[in-house]
Amino acid sequence: MSAAVVNQLIAALGDAVDITETARESARADKSGHAAHGLPLALVHARSVSDVQETLRIASATGTPVVTQGARTGLAGGANAGEGEIALSVRTMDRILEVRPDDLVAVVEPGILNADLNTALAEHGMWWAPDPASRAISTVGGNIATGAGGLLCAKYGVVRDAVLGVDVVLADGRLLRLGHRTVKGVTGLDLTSLMIGSEGTLGVIVGATLKLRRTIPGQVCTLAATFVNVRAAAVASAAVTASGVQPAIMELMDAASLAAVHDLLDLGAPAPGVAQLTIQTDGVAAVADAEAIAAILRAAGGTVAVSHNAEEGERLLAIRRSMHPAMERLGTTLIEDVSVPRSAMPAMFDEIARIERERGVVIPTVAHAGDGNLHPNFIFDAKPNVAGIVDVPEYIWEAADELFTAALKLGGTLTGEHGIGVLKRRWLADEIGDDQWELQRQLTRVFDPQGILNPGKVFAP
Amino acid sequence: MSAAVVNQLIAALGDAVDITETARESARADKSGHAAHGLPLALVHARSVSDVQETLRIASATGTPVVTQGARTGLAGGANAGEGEIALSVRTMDRILEVRPDDLVAVVEPGILNADLNTALAEHGMWWAPDPASRAISTVGGNIATGAGGLLCAKYGVVRDAVLGVDVVLADGRLLRLGHRTVKGVTGLDLTSLMIGSEGTLGVIVGATLKLRRTIPGQVCTLAATFVNVRAAAVASAAVTASGVQPAIMELMDAASLAAVHDLLDLGAPAPGVAQLTIQTDGVAAVADAEAIAAILRAAGGTVAVSHNAEEGERLLAIRRSMHPAMERLGTTLIEDVSVPRSAMPAMFDEIARIERERGVVIPTVAHAGDGNLHPNFIFDAKPNVAGIVDVPEYIWEAADELFTAALKLGGTLTGEHGIGVLKRRWLADEIGDDQWELQRQLTRVFDPQGILNPGKVFAP
Repeated sequence: MSAAVVNQLIAALGDAVDITETARESARADKSGHAAHGLPLALVHARSVSDVQETLRIASATGTPVVTQGARTGLAGGANAGEGEIALSVRTMDRILEVRPDDLVAVVEPGILNADLNTALAEHGMWWAPDPASRAISTVGGNIATGAGGLLCAKYGVVRDAVLGVDVVLADGRLLRLGHRTVKGVTGLDLTSLMIGSEGTLGVIVGATLKLRRTIPGQVCTLAATFVNVRAAAVASAAVTASGVQPAIMELMDAASLAAVHDLLDLGAPAPGVAQLTIQTDGVAAVADAEAIAAILRAAGGTVAVSHNAEEGERLLAIRRSMHPAMERLGTTLIEDVSVPRSAMPAMFDEIARIERERGVVIPTVAHAGDGNLHPNFIFDAKPNVAGIVDVPEYIWEAADELFTAALKLGGTLTGEHGIGVLKRRWLADEIGDDQWELQRQLTRVFDPQGILNPGKVFAP
Repeated sequence: MSAAVVNQLIAALGDAVDITETARESARADKSGHAAHGLPLALVHARSVSDVQETLRIASATGTPVVTQGARTGLAGGANAGEGEIALSVRTMDRILEVRPDDLVAVVEPGILNADLNTALAEHGMWWAPDPASRAISTVGGNIATGAGGLLCAKYGVVRDAVLGVDVVLADGRLLRLGHRTVKGVTGLDLTSLMIGSEGTLGVIVGATLKLRRTIPGQVCTLAATFVNVRAAAVASAAVTASGVQPAIMELMDAASLAAVHDLLDLGAPAPGVAQLTIQTDGVAAVADAEAIAAILRAAGGTVAVSHNAEEGERLLAIRRSMHPAMERLGTTLIEDVSVPRSAMPAMFDEIARIERERGVVIPTVAHAGDGNLHPNFIFDAKPNVAGIVDVPEYIWEAADELFTAALKLGGTLTGEHGIGVLKRRWLADEIGDDQWELQRQLTRVFDPQGILNPGKVFAP
């Protein structure tokens, strides 16, 4: 049967179908550190909407699972393709089809990299606001499929706020055009929003109409503030939010994160326990906002440096941006992604400290403090098994479980921007409840009656 | 059977159930000018979530249709309740349950009026951005159920951008809590967005977690500019959008609208053919933005007055706000609600002029020009029939049909902010296509397998 499926794909799509072991091996893993069991049947590099439709018609006729992939930079295993599955990559569908400065709209194919899109938009004096830390390597389609976030969300919104419409190929190969290209539009149910963050379970996103912003006028100011401990830094960031001054970026690094990055960048060790806030203001009020924020940080006990120089600002932010490589040097990492109301940030850091203490684990944590989104990094020693899979040890999952429970108790959510994928599916019902879990699963079945779209992800029991 | 249903309701809910003819008569109509056929069985004034649940359990057990109502200010007939139906009002569930300035979040019951909420929020230095023209009389729950828009959407977003979560009672009486109270959250499918604009077809909204904004600092500047005709005004408004300066409000009135309002307010007749743009800028750059916009308007041939005085600004905006009473004096009105890309505004006004000319109808039109949302008002003579129903004459629907077709051809949508309701259901498939229409209808069945929630609206063939 598997051979028959592959033969049908090759007959229909020719050299868009890659069945080399290298390709199939590459399709097993995203950047979560985890890989699917077994090799997928083939990696299809769709060149067009009709390639996607043809793939899904064959998949549908043969009951073969399909896992849509972009740049495979996901952090939840949501796009890992394994045994018996077709990996369907839309990465090479990367054209910008239309840019309309007068309507603040762009129409793109899903495979374009976020950064490449923004480079092209900058020539028109515009940008697309979603800015995941992975923007240099992640695709717009993937950003939409995961509901990716980033550093600028508190001021400039999340993906949901920046997509007007998507074109979607359903499991049976039909093409639907969802949404609109107008600022307002309430015709029927908002299926565009339903697609955002649906992680490949409802259809394959083959095009998107994006809501753009004008390049922000004025300068950028950057503040770096150190605090005696992470709790003090969290209290200070909550005070900034409560003050009403809106930073563009407000990033928090705890002591372990800061020390690891300082080591990586040869910056000299920070004082023990010291945590850091890195804040940027922008727009016509950037300087005044930076001054107001500096005063709040100092009143909260911070040692504050303010820079009005863009290059110096980038240098300060580079410390935050070096978090991932710094963590990689510490061991294997499970990068978590809880989000809590901003006022609950100090309490969430208390919980993380308690879990570290009680369970003897190390959890360096950074946070998009402006929007209450924390990335605790669980560090452990592990080697890939014979199948090339790194299994997160059970004691780490137990600590993570405690962390999720704490976040939910504080009014938070399991995942702010990475998605459920395979890594968090066992906790999904804890947050949304059994009734909603079942309702959501039934909704996926309306789009995909056979359940061939990304099975085993998100809603797998 | 009907008597049995009413008896069950009264037994369960006591004097929350109003079966007087006056009450049932009132439940037949919203502000669209159209009423449902026949009288509903009863008008239930839910006092609590459990009242809503009880009503739906009875409705579900007896297969009785339920029409959720708020303040009945809708303009598409979406909440009109008729023969054999239960009208379920959540208008008296109007408490503010929580306001969190530190998290920029409020939790409210659905029946609170938009304006009352904003009065309460102002004390905390915050506001909820959705501002339908009906905000003094429409409820937050209704704003969410219809995906209501308003004047400020281009700058401050639509309802979808301002709701983090909703509590929903399903057709069978179960309560679901959808969404989250964090800035970011991508746990499972985004059912909150699916509820927004679902017009009572998926469940009853019994609570909402709203995303708030800080009160905008700085002054407000108001510009009033007249142009020789509506096309010139539309070209000027598109030029403002294309320039990148972002007004808070940009309203356009065509000659017939302006003349009708001037007559209503005894302002003296404007010169024949003259159309008007009324623009407000706000925030710290309000004055600079107003100057930049004034220059664009003058270059586009406008006669421009700029006011930095808030009261004077309100007086200028009052002309736009008097549109509805002015129209009522001209005859019976079908208020339409198409939305087009902003660059297509001049072309859309050309189409309206053509339809007026070719069909001999009068269509005074105002527009939220900042976001491309037009409200053409079809004026006609009609008296209610014996059942109290005003039927829109077929020649008006034919003109409206032509208008919808023109809007869709220009890349627009049938409804920017009023919804489909009963008035536009026959055009829904024209915009979204038969496949999507059927998919959407199937999704409603997952929420409501019996089809008892607002039947005959939106998806009725």
